[in-house]
Amino acid sequence: TGPLGQGLANSVGMAIAEANLRARLGEELCDHYIFGLCSDGDMQEGISHEAASMAGHLGLGKIVFVYDDNHISIDGHTDLAFSDDTAARFRAYDWHVIELGNKGEDLDAIETAIREGMAETSKPTMIVLETEIGFPATESAGTHQVHGYAILDDEIAATKTLMGLDPAEVFAVAPEVADACAAAGVQHRDLFEAWSKRADAARSDSPEVVALMDGTPVDGWQDDLPTWEAGASVATRKASGAVVQALLEKVPSLVGGGADLTGNTGTTIKDEGVFTAETGAGRQIYYGIREHAMGAAMVGMAAHGGMIPIGGTFLVFSDYMRGAVRLAALSRHRTVFVWTHDSVGVGEDGPTHQPVEHVASLRAMPGLDVWRPADAHETNASWIAAITTDGPTALIMSRQGLPVFEDSADLTKSARGGYVLRDAGEPAVILTGAGSEVQHCMDAAEALAADGISARVVSMPCIEVFDRQDDAYRASVFPSGIPVVSIEAGSTMGWHRFADTALGIDRFGASAPGGTVMEKLGMTASAVESAARELLA
Amino acid sequence: TGPLGQGLANSVGMAIAEANLRARLGEELCDHYIFGLCSDGDMQEGISHEAASMAGHLGLGKIVFVYDDNHISIDGHTDLAFSDDTAARFRAYDWHVIELGNKGEDLDAIETAIREGMAETSKPTMIVLETEIGFPATESAGTHQVHGYAILDDEIAATKTLMGLDPAEVFAVAPEVADACAAAGVQHRDLFEAWSKRADAARSDSPEVVALMDGTPVDGWQDDLPTWEAGASVATRKASGAVVQALLEKVPSLVGGGADLTGNTGTTIKDEGVFTAETGAGRQIYYGIREHAMGAAMVGMAAHGGMIPIGGTFLVFSDYMRGAVRLAALSRHRTVFVWTHDSVGVGEDGPTHQPVEHVASLRAMPGLDVWRPADAHETNASWIAAITTDGPTALIMSRQGLPVFEDSADLTKSARGGYVLRDAGEPAVILTGAGSEVQHCMDAAEALAADGISARVVSMPCIEVFDRQDDAYRASVFPSGIPVVSIEAGSTMGWHRFADTALGIDRFGASAPGGTVMEKLGMTASAVESAARELLA
Repeated sequence: TGPLGQGLANSVGMAIAEANLRARLGEELCDHYIFGLCSDGDMQEGISHEAASMAGHLGLGKIVFVYDDNHISIDGHTDLAFSDDTAARFRAYDWHVIELGNKGEDLDAIETAIREGMAETSKPTMIVLETEIGFPATESAGTHQVHGYAILDDEIAATKTLMGLDPAEVFAVAPEVADACAAAGVQHRDLFEAWSKRADAARSDSPEVVALMDGTPVDGWQDDLPTWEAGASVATRKASGAVVQALLEKVPSLVGGGADLTGNTGTTIKDEGVFTAETGAGRQIYYGIREHAMGAAMVGMAAHGGMIPIGGTFLVFSDYMRGAVRLAALSRHRTVFVWTHDSVGVGEDGPTHQPVEHVASLRAMPGLDVWRPADAHETNASWIAAITTDGPTALIMSRQGLPVFEDSADLTKSARGGYVLRDAGEPAVILTGAGSEVQHCMDAAEALAADGISARVVSMPCIEVFDRQDDAYRASVFPSGIPVVSIEAGSTMGWHRFADTALGIDRFGASAPGGTVMEKLGMTASAVESAARELLA
Repeated sequence: TGPLGQGLANSVGMAIAEANLRARLGEELCDHYIFGLCSDGDMQEGISHEAASMAGHLGLGKIVFVYDDNHISIDGHTDLAFSDDTAARFRAYDWHVIELGNKGEDLDAIETAIREGMAETSKPTMIVLETEIGFPATESAGTHQVHGYAILDDEIAATKTLMGLDPAEVFAVAPEVADACAAAGVQHRDLFEAWSKRADAARSDSPEVVALMDGTPVDGWQDDLPTWEAGASVATRKASGAVVQALLEKVPSLVGGGADLTGNTGTTIKDEGVFTAETGAGRQIYYGIREHAMGAAMVGMAAHGGMIPIGGTFLVFSDYMRGAVRLAALSRHRTVFVWTHDSVGVGEDGPTHQPVEHVASLRAMPGLDVWRPADAHETNASWIAAITTDGPTALIMSRQGLPVFEDSADLTKSARGGYVLRDAGEPAVILTGAGSEVQHCMDAAEALAADGISARVVSMPCIEVFDRQDDAYRASVFPSGIPVVSIEAGSTMGWHRFADTALGIDRFGASAPGGTVMEKLGMTASAVESAARELLA
């Protein structure tokens, strides 16, 4: 059962991982198929289009799917809402399509079709199989009730009798089925043991092979992180792109790209080739304008193992891929979502392209660490976290240049998710924020200091990580009794937990240069300063 | 420019509205085409599949689209990521497809194709037109740079010279173009005036025609709302379904259904027929398993006018349609999103189907009123708000039965978004919440009263509406200085603005009967009572 369409798109990621690792590690270590079943519901969801189009374009021939076309959905017969020629649609994606017809009970025909699909390794295969839902239940077969409701005892008994089974026997397994399973187990145990020997040999030779198979970095990888000059102005999307490039050698599992915004989001992977099934070793993936399938393919890559998938788009379009992001979070898959152009700072493209509610909406999702670095140093920290965590990470990056702070250079501080970036004696007020607004806290602190008011600045690049710190640490950052002002160029939702006054943007943006929109909507140092003075008055 | 794919899906809603109103009002009052342009980017998005499949199934023959296939996207040539046979794909959806080839400059060929599409009124038409981006710019034509960057002055001058224009002249309009536009204006003014006379005549005859054309209710419509018995147990999704049914007669613009969850979400529209282009008057729409296109089609219906579109699915799948919901909010379109199965109370289907972060995520979106009624009375109030507002409304409904309160019967109270549901003298503590958790506040207040502690219960069915009340009212509901406990079976994000202690579920759910999951995760009256006692200690 749902979320519908995700499995088909996951399979695209698994097939990308298989082809990539096959090319880079050799067929002796990686060479397998991706089999799957999909339903009428999967075929109606938009993500099926994105996933199938991507798989056809990339030539992911190891995918073999069976479309269980039972013509039933929850509302009733699929005729109510659905009349696609799905076989023709998949041919239009350059899939190898086998129309088996009404052969749901013909195991030989199904096996022959699957083997034909396996033999066609340059195109993914879709076997369209018409079936009857609930077959051969005496009353329920072919009805939509059987999709959601249990078959009652009398009908179960009648159906078992019809099938030549003993109605009194439950959870029965025919001996020939048990024997066949056991024999398959023995056969595959031998294959697995032979593979394990080859894998052990390859691993003992090479730390790179270990890193690639396990999705772990090679020792010393953090030494390759770029260094940043305090005082320079660097867009965090640019800093993030530099980090990706710097880590490629010692984090061989990093692969990915953008949803047609590869350059814009800093997800370009230079000099490592472009991935297609033919040129399988390439590490740059052009996902196309397919945010939802990108997310789900990333989940599939991470589930496969050996891959740390990167996927970039504008933050505002994270909405298009939330279904996939949620499953990454729920299933604990290490995926790196790079969402740039993170606020009304986007500017002239206007409110359709200016995220406002997105950071809060993503922070509300359990299991997702949302990093919004204040500068290039914190960007380094966010990537260390993304690579070393066991789940998905959202990296929220600015379009516009942000000043690099001196005191953010110690990455052990930002690794705690929230930390004191600036302090001056006993603070009278705490100014906190994330991302591009931390600079306003710094400037406001400066202005208050000139007036003899000590203000602490707390940078909060990742609230989820901060929440996981021990009580003593968190209390040391926000000692009780000291008033707090927060600022973030987006929904204030979530900040009232820390702040007495939360400055933000609880409305849609506007079409104007980014700096103008920011200023008109109150994202300024003077707004922070005024709020602090008001709290102290 | 994006959000890509929305326009194609909006057009499906516009065509539904056109066909529905044509059947119900007559061709004299409604009879028009829906023309549109779409791009390579639109064609890659999943929503294009959902929208095109729906349009083909419904036979929306008044749609005529031109696919401007310029083979360029932001990352470069579409070959990088896209190799669909789009014409074949649209034929698989039962569209009328015209492949014009490379005739972007052949206005006669384009006009002939459009007229052919208009003549085919039983199927939507897609004209596939290959073009060159930036044509005939001397340097930039055919490049992906011209998608995002301005053409510089020298090239503009050279291009104008090439086209036989004067490089010095800017914003020039040729006289024959101006004359043609003026003539079209005169011709269409006459048509509009004739239509206006027919419309005025029809409207003067019938309040129903006025209501249907304007999307307004007929006088006295609120008298038709169902009445509820205090103390009964009613799932708000059931209450919501009863409201829809009761309002059909006096709110003739209400049309809609669910995304294959019509019965489950209470979006069944009985005895009014099922909509297809053939049986155009039907008010029940089977959207299919297409949440994103459902949302965008609803925006299209609302934009067309005359329609108050309803669309239902499970709350957890609101993620699949956020892109469309955001545009409803940004463009102020009156759409009614019915999202049921609103918490871990969903039960056995487990975490994939149990929303946790969704209510908070939707509340973070500007311009969307999120109603989560505590009982059937508040459900009535939420529908009044949805029908009388000028923007989109989210109706968040429970799967499980909820007690109907006595004191929620006065809908003028709940119309304020938040109100005192129970009071007893000077309150020592305030217990607040929304939806299915308000009952726990009531029970906790009872238990505290038995111990001599006065607790006020504030029900908050719609925080956005409460925030729009005047300061005095809001302060009367939450007088300063009285401690507040909140409870909601979902993310606590957003509640700290009101509450000193916020009880909620900041993790994914679990697979077990709904009541068990609720209890294990602390959604109980005793948890509220304990939190209140702790604040008072």
